[in-house]
Amino acid sequence: MIDTLIQKIQETGSPIVVGLDPMLKFIPEHILRAAFEQYGETLQGAAEAVWQYNKGIVDAVCDLVPAVKPQIAMYEQFGIDGLAAFQKTADYCKEKGLVVIGDIKRGDIGSTSEAYAAAHLGKVNVGTHRYAAFDEDFATVNPYMGADSVKPFLKVCQEENKGIFVLVKTSNPSSGEFQDRLIGGRPLYELVGEKVAEWGASCMGSSYSQVGAVVGATYPEQGKILRRIMPKAYILVPGYGAQGGKGADLVHFFNDDGLGAIINSSRGIIAAWQQEKYAAFGAARYAEASRQAVLDMREDIAQALANR
Amino acid sequence: MIDTLIQKIQETGSPIVVGLDPMLKFIPEHILRAAFEQYGETLQGAAEAVWQYNKGIVDAVCDLVPAVKPQIAMYEQFGIDGLAAFQKTADYCKEKGLVVIGDIKRGDIGSTSEAYAAAHLGKVNVGTHRYAAFDEDFATVNPYMGADSVKPFLKVCQEENKGIFVLVKTSNPSSGEFQDRLIGGRPLYELVGEKVAEWGASCMGSSYSQVGAVVGATYPEQGKILRRIMPKAYILVPGYGAQGGKGADLVHFFNDDGLGAIINSSRGIIAAWQQEKYAAFGAARYAEASRQAVLDMREDIAQALANR
Repeated sequence: MIDTLIQKIQETGSPIVVGLDPMLKFIPEHILRAAFEQYGETLQGAAEAVWQYNKGIVDAVCDLVPAVKPQIAMYEQFGIDGLAAFQKTADYCKEKGLVVIGDIKRGDIGSTSEAYAAAHLGKVNVGTHRYAAFDEDFATVNPYMGADSVKPFLKVCQEENKGIFVLVKTSNPSSGEFQDRLIGGRPLYELVGEKVAEWGASCMGSSYSQVGAVVGATYPEQGKILRRIMPKAYILVPGYGAQGGKGADLVHFFNDDGLGAIINSSRGIIAAWQQEKYAAFGAARYAEASRQAVLDMREDIAQALANR
Repeated sequence: MIDTLIQKIQETGSPIVVGLDPMLKFIPEHILRAAFEQYGETLQGAAEAVWQYNKGIVDAVCDLVPAVKPQIAMYEQFGIDGLAAFQKTADYCKEKGLVVIGDIKRGDIGSTSEAYAAAHLGKVNVGTHRYAAFDEDFATVNPYMGADSVKPFLKVCQEENKGIFVLVKTSNPSSGEFQDRLIGGRPLYELVGEKVAEWGASCMGSSYSQVGAVVGATYPEQGKILRRIMPKAYILVPGYGAQGGKGADLVHFFNDDGLGAIINSSRGIIAAWQQEKYAAFGAARYAEASRQAVLDMREDIAQALANR
């Protein structure tokens, strides 16, 4: 799957993933109203609004980007209906040729991680049949419980040609609380990065591994070090835009081949219409605002890479 | 909610939580057959089997134990249908007077953790209405991303009288890979334990905090130290039974007041009918086997506490 992702990045010239993290406050009034008229102000109504909003954005950007990253929490808060909208969104994105990175941050002891890996990347046996439940292309994984929480995901990656991104250094302000603690003089995130490199060696694509890492755009210096520790890991970089990361911060996440990183933007793209910069589009043309935000982000990254 | 949990532990004399982690291989043939006849060998059929199986166990043990802990991964693997069975199980357990600990191990950056906290413990706004999606009583939380991933859960605990158990030292063999790494001479899990104590101080019940910790029965020596570091935290202890933890290993997780710990057993109870010890019950009486396994576990723990 990493080969497919790289191919799509090269085709589009966009090392960009659109974070489909819908919040009701991002959704234009006309979409909310239509959904609530159909289903009432219910969880089902909210889920329908989320789906219609996502669909508009996906239609507007699918030729420009290689991948999307739906954040499952934003769907899970609307219960079963929300999770059905997550699945519908993931399926639709795949139909449109997009790589789907499920931002699920799961991780548990062995047999339980097996179930999560089956749920999101693999298949589950029911009698004599096998089913893929959510069937994303990649998933994000939390490493706190150690290797035996990650290995079931590696097995599925090998069997099903899927991939994972392991949390290494996250973009949030308090990520350092545990991740930066020094162990023998080196921060924990470096040790996790070394494990990512080790795990990834067993799941290689043709040039990069199916096992990537999450490293926040908000920590460019750490990104520089982690780039060296995990040369074959694709780095999924959240924190661009709304969280404060800029194009110039991103250059160290890339290898000299111009590959090795994919930058996520969520509200910076999906809620572009609410920003002053894109206000002229208005609520009715929210999806066009998202398209313009992708074009601007692509340009920002390309310039930063050209100037490095 | 911690006060309710303690009250139920005292009423039943069982510091025991039944892990509702159904795998199809645990489910008696007659239940599988009936579900597959109704819905086919589909995800819906699997979910129906899981629900019927759970219901039998819950009916058989609900007067003996204070709480259940459904592991959401085991439901998530069956997709939307599986998650509907999770919700149905949680709702049914609450009807039966059981405290429901959602074993979800979520954790993400601030706004995303807010969504998870709303999904599982709190409420979400839809227009002028507010809905609780999964509405468990407690949830397990992964701390790797630091305080701002945990704080949204604390806020919901305060507002809604709910609780969390933060992963500190997990029961799996490779939990030490990161959790045991020494930071200034002390293992990471101790630092996480200190944070749990700090976070918990803002969410006190009458004697214990709404913020508890997960510490595996498989690590009793570490449990002894963590008990001291987090005196007001209830410790949820997985790893008893199938993972190798014994009654005698558990005594250090309890405080001198006989409280402070609740011991989880999953397959040791729910798949008791498949063990040699309980084979006489047979598949038809699988739920009675679970009941007997709870009684035996209660006795094992009571003896260990009496002998300490």
